[in-house]
Amino acid sequence: MPRSFKISVPASSANIGPGYDVLGIGLALYLTLDVEINAKNANETNEDPNNCNISYTEDSEGFGNVPLKSDENLITRTALYVLRCNNNRTFPSGTKVHIHNPIPLGRGLGSSGAAVVAGVMLGNEVGQLGFSRQRMLDYCLMIERHPDNITAAMMGGFVGSFLRDLTPAEMERREIPLSEVLGEPNGGENTGLVPPSPPMNIGRHVSYNWNKDIKCIAIIPNFEVSTADSRGVLPQAYTAKDLVFNLQRLAVLTTALTQSPPNPELIYPAMQDRVHQPYRKTLIPGLTEILSSVTPSTYPGLLGICLSGAGPTILALAVDNFEDIALEIINRFSKNNIGCSWKLLDLAYEGAQLEN
Amino acid sequence: MPRSFKISVPASSANIGPGYDVLGIGLALYLTLDVEINAKNANETNEDPNNCNISYTEDSEGFGNVPLKSDENLITRTALYVLRCNNNRTFPSGTKVHIHNPIPLGRGLGSSGAAVVAGVMLGNEVGQLGFSRQRMLDYCLMIERHPDNITAAMMGGFVGSFLRDLTPAEMERREIPLSEVLGEPNGGENTGLVPPSPPMNIGRHVSYNWNKDIKCIAIIPNFEVSTADSRGVLPQAYTAKDLVFNLQRLAVLTTALTQSPPNPELIYPAMQDRVHQPYRKTLIPGLTEILSSVTPSTYPGLLGICLSGAGPTILALAVDNFEDIALEIINRFSKNNIGCSWKLLDLAYEGAQLEN
Repeated sequence: MPRSFKISVPASSANIGPGYDVLGIGLALYLTLDVEINAKNANETNEDPNNCNISYTEDSEGFGNVPLKSDENLITRTALYVLRCNNNRTFPSGTKVHIHNPIPLGRGLGSSGAAVVAGVMLGNEVGQLGFSRQRMLDYCLMIERHPDNITAAMMGGFVGSFLRDLTPAEMERREIPLSEVLGEPNGGENTGLVPPSPPMNIGRHVSYNWNKDIKCIAIIPNFEVSTADSRGVLPQAYTAKDLVFNLQRLAVLTTALTQSPPNPELIYPAMQDRVHQPYRKTLIPGLTEILSSVTPSTYPGLLGICLSGAGPTILALAVDNFEDIALEIINRFSKNNIGCSWKLLDLAYEGAQLEN
Repeated sequence: MPRSFKISVPASSANIGPGYDVLGIGLALYLTLDVEINAKNANETNEDPNNCNISYTEDSEGFGNVPLKSDENLITRTALYVLRCNNNRTFPSGTKVHIHNPIPLGRGLGSSGAAVVAGVMLGNEVGQLGFSRQRMLDYCLMIERHPDNITAAMMGGFVGSFLRDLTPAEMERREIPLSEVLGEPNGGENTGLVPPSPPMNIGRHVSYNWNKDIKCIAIIPNFEVSTADSRGVLPQAYTAKDLVFNLQRLAVLTTALTQSPPNPELIYPAMQDRVHQPYRKTLIPGLTEILSSVTPSTYPGLLGICLSGAGPTILALAVDNFEDIALEIINRFSKNNIGCSWKLLDLAYEGAQLEN
């Protein structure tokens, strides 16, 4: 029987304010996969060693540069990992995946997190595995062990997450580098043995009751920050003072963003950070000035401002004055000869979705 | 006109789980002041240089050891500071303050925080200054700049707090050591000048919507931990890993404790801490064993367990099995030859109260 379905997974913003490696927001900008499984297409898909024909819409981010081989493309490679853990070696013959990706790559908007989530959902659906979202999160966390983007993309809304302590036996099942995910021993590439499934319930999270009046303004500079660079500039150790600074603001921020009406006098200072933003200013010209001088008193309606993920995207939360706020930040970037685009986004309240 | 009123201020537990210097819980165990201002009592109160006669109930904690001179007693010394900042040199002639304090001293249950809050409320009421709770918090934070216990005692319930960034001018108005609070320049002791008032709105906080099914079990060992010792054992620096560990759990815990029914699988791991508890085991024999081996699987109804403040009191959150949990922890302390008492406490949802 031919089957077809659609998967959509939101972009996300992580590290919100003081919530380094903790807080994530799903954003209403969706990576979508139109999937068709039809044996009549076998001629087309047989060209791929795993029976999967991949195509992208022409206006997708990275169009022309994204790998189209199913064991190289991040989405389908992740799906293959899930399939192999569950005793399927390949996609069914005649699988076609048509992808639309409007999420900018390498800008701190969760493009790779969305790809991993989409890949796990793809594997789950193609293999008819029937996993819950919570169980699919375990698979995601084997590929990408930072739970903030992954949880936001999977669950949607505004979430806080952590990984539970693994038992000694589970400790051997750490994050698998993507380059090893299909090889031995994780993917059973050569032996054909069924690789072990992930530990159960690796991730814990809560969803906060985001005040829906608050919108997200994403100001997206036209350059990429590599994950290696963005991690490399962070210090090895933090003072107790900086640690407490972030703990205090984090504790207030998660609840302040649920209150109605939102209080900029509470939210703006609670979005300050001393753990990653001060160190990333060297990678993002103008960052310090932007974070310190665009305020609710100069732009009424602005609630707070922070780096999205590791940047370079700036995330501003606001209830009004969206365009003025965006243009002010774009203007400040332009003084450093950096061009930007911007988007006004609602939260993706529902997270990743499957449509039959 | 003779006046009388009553002030009650709750005990509090701070540093809840990962919330070092952040989270506080007001506990339904109240420091109370019965205050009478009557010129007919002038003969009695004239013995005190500031016209204040202090007495304690015999079953008060520390009875017999607490100073009864109004410029030495923490409560009335704090009240005098508030009065002097507002152009009153002393208490009105004929002021009698009768105190009942059931909060154990030096055990991590916020006895000094309660005294400071009670003192500020006393000054506000005696001087008829009409300050809001938020403004009274500013005065409290001049004496005791750690907002967690202070905010919980003043506001009640379950709170997260931080201090806003002070402006350069305000920076000169830091916390005043108690020994200097009445001297120059803060208290105008000799010159008689009116000392400056605290900066406005130093503290920021949010109140979390605590699930009222959750009760607090306080297990109180019979020895004191000094603040100097408890701060002295903490490290100068923290790894990013330990920092993120606490940030992640803090983000989840505050919301997990509002959910119904409370989920021990979420709360218990979210109450883990790597910032202060591991370092305080040297001051509190048996701590590590207690924190790691009394779990929801061995004691159904238990949600989480942590040090209260800097200890030595252990705080267990539970919905059932209260006595069994307390006796198990008491038993573990007894193996280290430490005796304990215990209390089952609700939250003090209303915080500090004035009754005319």
